[in-house]
Amino acid sequence: MSLTNTPNANRLHIALYGRRNSGKSSLINALTGQNTALVSEYAGTTTDPVYKAMELHPIGPVLFIDTAGFDDEGELGRLRVEKTEQAVARTDMALVLLSEGELSLEKQWIEKLKKRNIPVIAVINKIDILKDAQALAARAEKALGQTPVCVSALKGEGITDLREALVRALPEDYERKSITGDLVGDGDLVMLVMPQDIQAPKGRLILPQVQTTRELLDKKCVIISTTADRYELALEQLAHAPKLIITDSQCFKQVYEHKPQESLLTSFSVLFAGYKGDINAFVAGAAAIDKLGPGSRVLIAEACTHAPLSEDIGRVKIPRALRARYGQQMQIDIVAGVDFPKDLSPYDLVIHCGGCMFNRKYVLSRIEAAQAADVPITNYGVALAKLTGILDKISFAGR
Amino acid sequence: MSLTNTPNANRLHIALYGRRNSGKSSLINALTGQNTALVSEYAGTTTDPVYKAMELHPIGPVLFIDTAGFDDEGELGRLRVEKTEQAVARTDMALVLLSEGELSLEKQWIEKLKKRNIPVIAVINKIDILKDAQALAARAEKALGQTPVCVSALKGEGITDLREALVRALPEDYERKSITGDLVGDGDLVMLVMPQDIQAPKGRLILPQVQTTRELLDKKCVIISTTADRYELALEQLAHAPKLIITDSQCFKQVYEHKPQESLLTSFSVLFAGYKGDINAFVAGAAAIDKLGPGSRVLIAEACTHAPLSEDIGRVKIPRALRARYGQQMQIDIVAGVDFPKDLSPYDLVIHCGGCMFNRKYVLSRIEAAQAADVPITNYGVALAKLTGILDKISFAGR
Repeated sequence: MSLTNTPNANRLHIALYGRRNSGKSSLINALTGQNTALVSEYAGTTTDPVYKAMELHPIGPVLFIDTAGFDDEGELGRLRVEKTEQAVARTDMALVLLSEGELSLEKQWIEKLKKRNIPVIAVINKIDILKDAQALAARAEKALGQTPVCVSALKGEGITDLREALVRALPEDYERKSITGDLVGDGDLVMLVMPQDIQAPKGRLILPQVQTTRELLDKKCVIISTTADRYELALEQLAHAPKLIITDSQCFKQVYEHKPQESLLTSFSVLFAGYKGDINAFVAGAAAIDKLGPGSRVLIAEACTHAPLSEDIGRVKIPRALRARYGQQMQIDIVAGVDFPKDLSPYDLVIHCGGCMFNRKYVLSRIEAAQAADVPITNYGVALAKLTGILDKISFAGR
Repeated sequence: MSLTNTPNANRLHIALYGRRNSGKSSLINALTGQNTALVSEYAGTTTDPVYKAMELHPIGPVLFIDTAGFDDEGELGRLRVEKTEQAVARTDMALVLLSEGELSLEKQWIEKLKKRNIPVIAVINKIDILKDAQALAARAEKALGQTPVCVSALKGEGITDLREALVRALPEDYERKSITGDLVGDGDLVMLVMPQDIQAPKGRLILPQVQTTRELLDKKCVIISTTADRYELALEQLAHAPKLIITDSQCFKQVYEHKPQESLLTSFSVLFAGYKGDINAFVAGAAAIDKLGPGSRVLIAEACTHAPLSEDIGRVKIPRALRARYGQQMQIDIVAGVDFPKDLSPYDLVIHCGGCMFNRKYVLSRIEAAQAADVPITNYGVALAKLTGILDKISFAGR
């Protein structure tokens, strides 16, 4: 049987930071036993962060982020360091590689990462060629307040210790996050309403449908799946009402109107808003929609630069619904990719995409930015539910 | 919403054949409007066939196979031509590019392709720089018995004509093949028994489960999905028995013993044996298992060189079952990848993998090879069903 892979967005993102030539790429190779990262003896080989999906025993599917040296210089070097800075927003765990010499830059980066609640492991690499690894370790312990793990990526020494350190430092919520939370459990009947008309390429299902199906099977639920136009027929096939109905948002009204009274109802996009972000923040942010006016300014932010389907929601549907309510003059700015404004203060509301291609950390870092600027933030799915008047009829996971 | 892509195995495989520097890579770029194939003005840039997944309007998802020139020379050249020859086995449609000069090699290739029932379109590329494209076209028509389509990949001329020619030449069975055939239709209730314990990576479903679910939704069936350990509970949730139960082969016995009498039963691997091959040939081939003896010689052939899961079936389960029946001395050869023996006559039976990573054409070409050598051929799923005595209890699609 052929397998499709764990989506990158679901992998633990482990980023490596350090000076040029500190051996970040070699360390990834040593950890995975593969020769995947390009290793060169010249400093500054890695420019844009390189993402490498791997199985890392015993953690499971991870995504290594191999960054450019944070001490890079010159015009191009500054650009590289900026890209390295941007990688912090999606880092679940960090390895900071120490080099001989002074440790002020390393200290600065460790503090920056810790401030964002990212677990950090300090690593001394190249113990096979360092003049005095022990002295560096002692000095690092003093300067950084943590004991570095000593390894030689080249000789494979200390790699087991480093794996163990990674397992010990795993973020607390790692593996705990679930799509459907406590809405359903063992033996529950769950209905999925999944129109296939325009959404997925031939022979495929869109990722949220696959991930939700898999989670429900893992939870030992029984799943009944149907398109919207056979939804009522599907209900008739059942001996009793489903505990929960999860629908594509676009047919929410139909599903709501014909649903058995005892069935809970939610949508894929609302569940993913919680799975990939902070549902409480998004629901609170959606309340701000009622307080907008003709002179309000709204920021619509997409994580992907190419998002043909959600584009329709973010660039057409949501602006149309907002302008229908508050007038055509309302100022709505749309940004994509990493172009998230540093200054959010001009905005009355931020509406973010589902972020399905990114890890949760990345979406949370944008929520934090909005909260720091005191600007309410919601997301596509929750905003659409609010704008169509159904947000109060929906069940949420993990609130 | 993020999308997963149409699997390559489900795409129409369009291969380009021609001499070195006939402009095969440029033509792919012109057809897709993308700059994906590496184009060089030096002959012989393409070595191993290059596979490029694309959306080709109006056909849909295709896989272009960009081959090395069939006139390549020298030791390395002969190796390249051999790879080009191997690409024929998976070609659904072929474009043969004509070059100025004599056309004997082109004629030879067109005949080779047509002998395998592969639709062929002759193409004259570079009409912007050819000395006399019309004369070449007239000559080709005479020599090859078909009118070439004249294009300039560089200038984009004639590309619309070529697209139209492709649509006209589509293989007859293109788009007609279905996984579940006429076993179920609109409104039917179908149960999927899908244990998730060891099969798929976290957060994913294996490809046959995704493809079957999608096809059933497209057919407007209602689907009830369950793991094996909640199978009886799932049946209890239903107002009536499902029309069809599709189970993972590994829990066939349990599912069969508890199935409602009126429900048809089949397995994912048996359905895919028909979808990806010729179910009649495979069932006939499975009958040969009864006629083996201690001195028989069996070939087990895997399409993938890395197949961690099916490996277990082909390398462990099937040999074990065969030897349990006919003795430990039975000779069982295992080959993987393109190492399919040219001479099959020493064998009494060929058992092929499901070929889920390959297109149907490729599996059919191996069936043809076995039939030409008068050796019965079956596949993993059908052989397992036969060996466990359930083949006569199963429903087939499209027999």
